[in-house]
Amino acid sequence: MRLRNKPWAQKLVQEHPEAILNQPDPEKKIDWKSRFDDFSKPLAIEIGSGKGQFITTLAKNHPEMNFIGIELQTTAAGMILRTKLEEGIDNLQLMCADAANIAMFLPENSADIIYLNFSDPWPKTRHEKRRLTYKSFLREYQTVLKDDGHLEFKTDNQGLFEYSLVSMNNYGMKFDFLSLDLHHNKSEIAQNNVETEYEHKFAAKGNPIYCLHASFK
Amino acid sequence: MRLRNKPWAQKLVQEHPEAILNQPDPEKKIDWKSRFDDFSKPLAIEIGSGKGQFITTLAKNHPEMNFIGIELQTTAAGMILRTKLEEGIDNLQLMCADAANIAMFLPENSADIIYLNFSDPWPKTRHEKRRLTYKSFLREYQTVLKDDGHLEFKTDNQGLFEYSLVSMNNYGMKFDFLSLDLHHNKSEIAQNNVETEYEHKFAAKGNPIYCLHASFK
Repeated sequence: MRLRNKPWAQKLVQEHPEAILNQPDPEKKIDWKSRFDDFSKPLAIEIGSGKGQFITTLAKNHPEMNFIGIELQTTAAGMILRTKLEEGIDNLQLMCADAANIAMFLPENSADIIYLNFSDPWPKTRHEKRRLTYKSFLREYQTVLKDDGHLEFKTDNQGLFEYSLVSMNNYGMKFDFLSLDLHHNKSEIAQNNVETEYEHKFAAKGNPIYCLHASFK
Repeated sequence: MRLRNKPWAQKLVQEHPEAILNQPDPEKKIDWKSRFDDFSKPLAIEIGSGKGQFITTLAKNHPEMNFIGIELQTTAAGMILRTKLEEGIDNLQLMCADAANIAMFLPENSADIIYLNFSDPWPKTRHEKRRLTYKSFLREYQTVLKDDGHLEFKTDNQGLFEYSLVSMNNYGMKFDFLSLDLHHNKSEIAQNNVETEYEHKFAAKGNPIYCLHASFK
């Protein structure tokens, strides 16, 4: 979802290079170790963090883990950054960058979980390669995830979910958990679900949330 | 779905051993070649044919193929048999048997398509092994299907579809087509869909039909 440009957000991002990497140079190696208090903690990455309700909630609930939120839009990234600074969420780092080449920015075999939440569905066939579950993106996630890491994918978009099930299956990914109506699912995974701001609004209308957890094992 | 016992159906089944195999002896090899005019035609098998609307419609529409309908209940099998005899559907053979060991009754690598339509969902976890998409059944289908054959699965049951996607993925099957709402899907596959009697009633209420085509490639 596109947000109106907020000049304060752009300014905040520029003022806090210690908290957010803004369009980092792919040629330069990022020293992630120096950006976290203890980089040996389990790492979770969200691709497309929006306004950040999901990743900031998780980071606050899980001080025993580290989190990286990646968001392309500076305005949205600035909003997450504001929350991080105001609430002192030290185990969360942000990056304003395109997800297409995330393996260039992140260490290999470093992440335990990658979250994809309510990604742009890109419904037109000619835009297939932009969908975050297209095989070239899956290759990036595979590089970044640890061998025993996994992907957690949520969407309300039926077409994107159908596409993603086929794409991930064809890539050879193993399905670990699947729900066609996460908010009415009785499993422990569903009970522990953390909502995004978009998910909250959408589910309130009674529409189903689709969810898949899958790994590259 | 259980049907009330119809004595005429039992009698009809007994009177037509040339058209229906009734609880065949797994020790005896079935001479399928002699049961069809031309056994070299492509072969499609439906597991759980119910009253037979799907398989009889397909068999009439596709004289260039052979069909086998398998149905456990004698009353339902008798109803399909009546249609077959009345309408002279020569490219359809029937078998009244349990699907658990179908590879014992059918030749290996012989089928082009296996259809699973609206199978019993067996929702209780302790009945998982009875679901027609449990791995032991998938093994039977793999044995019976040709290398380039595939499975076509339809259901209205959300829990069974969720389970089956995970089960078939975990078995290593490749997804070829997937729809979470077949009756509102615009693909050629969806446009050519042949309804079962159950599907027709269920979809008329506006409920979605789930569909997966998958292969063992």
